[in-house]
Amino acid sequence: MAGASLALQAALRDVAEEIDRQFDLLLTVPGDSRAPLYAAMRHATIGSGKRLRPLLVFAASRLFGVDRQCAARAATAIEAIHVYSLIHDDLPAMDDDDVRRGKPTVHKAFDEATAILAGDCLHALAFELLADPATHADPFVRAELVGCVAHAAGPAGMGGGQMMDLEAEKSRFDLATVTRLQAMKTGALIACSVEAGLILGRVPPEGRIGLRGYARDLGLAFQIADDLLDVEGDEAAVGKKLRKDAAQGKETFVSLLGRDRAREQAGLLVDQAIEHLQNYGDEADLLRDLARYTLERDR
Amino acid sequence: MAGASLALQAALRDVAEEIDRQFDLLLTVPGDSRAPLYAAMRHATIGSGKRLRPLLVFAASRLFGVDRQCAARAATAIEAIHVYSLIHDDLPAMDDDDVRRGKPTVHKAFDEATAILAGDCLHALAFELLADPATHADPFVRAELVGCVAHAAGPAGMGGGQMMDLEAEKSRFDLATVTRLQAMKTGALIACSVEAGLILGRVPPEGRIGLRGYARDLGLAFQIADDLLDVEGDEAAVGKKLRKDAAQGKETFVSLLGRDRAREQAGLLVDQAIEHLQNYGDEADLLRDLARYTLERDR
Repeated sequence: MAGASLALQAALRDVAEEIDRQFDLLLTVPGDSRAPLYAAMRHATIGSGKRLRPLLVFAASRLFGVDRQCAARAATAIEAIHVYSLIHDDLPAMDDDDVRRGKPTVHKAFDEATAILAGDCLHALAFELLADPATHADPFVRAELVGCVAHAAGPAGMGGGQMMDLEAEKSRFDLATVTRLQAMKTGALIACSVEAGLILGRVPPEGRIGLRGYARDLGLAFQIADDLLDVEGDEAAVGKKLRKDAAQGKETFVSLLGRDRAREQAGLLVDQAIEHLQNYGDEADLLRDLARYTLERDR
Repeated sequence: MAGASLALQAALRDVAEEIDRQFDLLLTVPGDSRAPLYAAMRHATIGSGKRLRPLLVFAASRLFGVDRQCAARAATAIEAIHVYSLIHDDLPAMDDDDVRRGKPTVHKAFDEATAILAGDCLHALAFELLADPATHADPFVRAELVGCVAHAAGPAGMGGGQMMDLEAEKSRFDLATVTRLQAMKTGALIACSVEAGLILGRVPPEGRIGLRGYARDLGLAFQIADDLLDVEGDEAAVGKKLRKDAAQGKETFVSLLGRDRAREQAGLLVDQAIEHLQNYGDEADLLRDLARYTLERDR
């Protein structure tokens, strides 16, 4: 956690523990032939990951006095969606990766069929979790959470972004297209994590503008930092294979802007993200720390 | 549609047209590099399929005066879940099938990565559709639909059943285990299709017992008929590769009971399903016809 403030470090640890506990409860291995499926879901969800999206759910929820258990369930659902997308993106037919979060990918530790099903089941579990009355007593809140997450996961969000990313190997994308691709592929679920806090807090539309701006700028800064890590990072620290974009001839923010301008752009976005929080006091310091950390992180 | 009554034939045609129209509206191909993703989703969803699950949603909804547009959206969402599961089950790492519904499977017509993503995107779209206020004005109904479908799709339903099915090649299952496997793999989403009508109709729990019994018996009868078709059917009519279970050494209702007893058992289940409808008059004739058709169908 190089570069993280002490408060952020503590929050990241707390959130990581909470999300591990939630997945542990959710994924009790049954005594039948589905055991490998559950083991694969546990392998992918428990004990690793930055938990950036859950932290965003908690940090945004805190601004509106949301019950911690409600936030924890929404955060777990969104992390389940994120993890399912990693499992499927890592498959041989997709990005073909062997290592993820410092561990063998699911299709390596188990097999391809189990990896496909583990991703599919986490996908479904996320929506079952969100729709459950235990997540929020108000069904309007639950339905809005489902709509928000489903939109972020589908062809107008993560799924569509991953398709564009696969096509990126075949054609040369310009900066506007790469920005749009990344806004879909990673930006949509990051924005949805912040939006979950707004939904759980029943914040009216006019009160959502600042945090939405924060989430948009943070998502883009995060992706530029990811592209820089792909070029400059240490594979052991990052926990996955690096230098893949250049090898595949994919355009990234770094290939299009160069390292210096990419870093400068990410810095501007972080400043801008923090400015969007001007209506909030100390209670938003975690979101500010998180924005700054985006550029300092080594994984 | 051999064996279907005239009323059922007309209903199947109407439902097929309606579902095609819904998917056509939902899946407008965008003018960017996501076009193959949308083309793949259209290939899998439009112009084929028995539409058994949508018909169940419509037929159950009709008993409670549900608005046809609400039923159509719920039916489309459930069919999207069914189609996504077919796309993923057909992948080389899973059942490795080349033909589905008389057409090349998605990974054959496109490629594996596109097939995985098309399945994932249909999965997300289903929940986006259900959570949308256009599906029902009452958010409680929307959240209940999401919970029902997500549970039926996940590790306690279809996903778990498919995992058990993959394991079935490795171990010898008895009749109780095969029954449980099929109740999860196909029964859960069939039951959920009927339940969607109950949810949309805001039927209280005590009013749901009869239709739930119908759905449970119908689902099992349908699967036994599927196992019989796998042994006796014509590949061109059924539109997929047959005789796979025996080749893979998988136990089925037919391998465990023999053809005659399997057919007899399915007949008993159909009678039992129809008995569960005793509290309904003519308005449930479509459900009765559908139960009888289960055994007569040639695809």
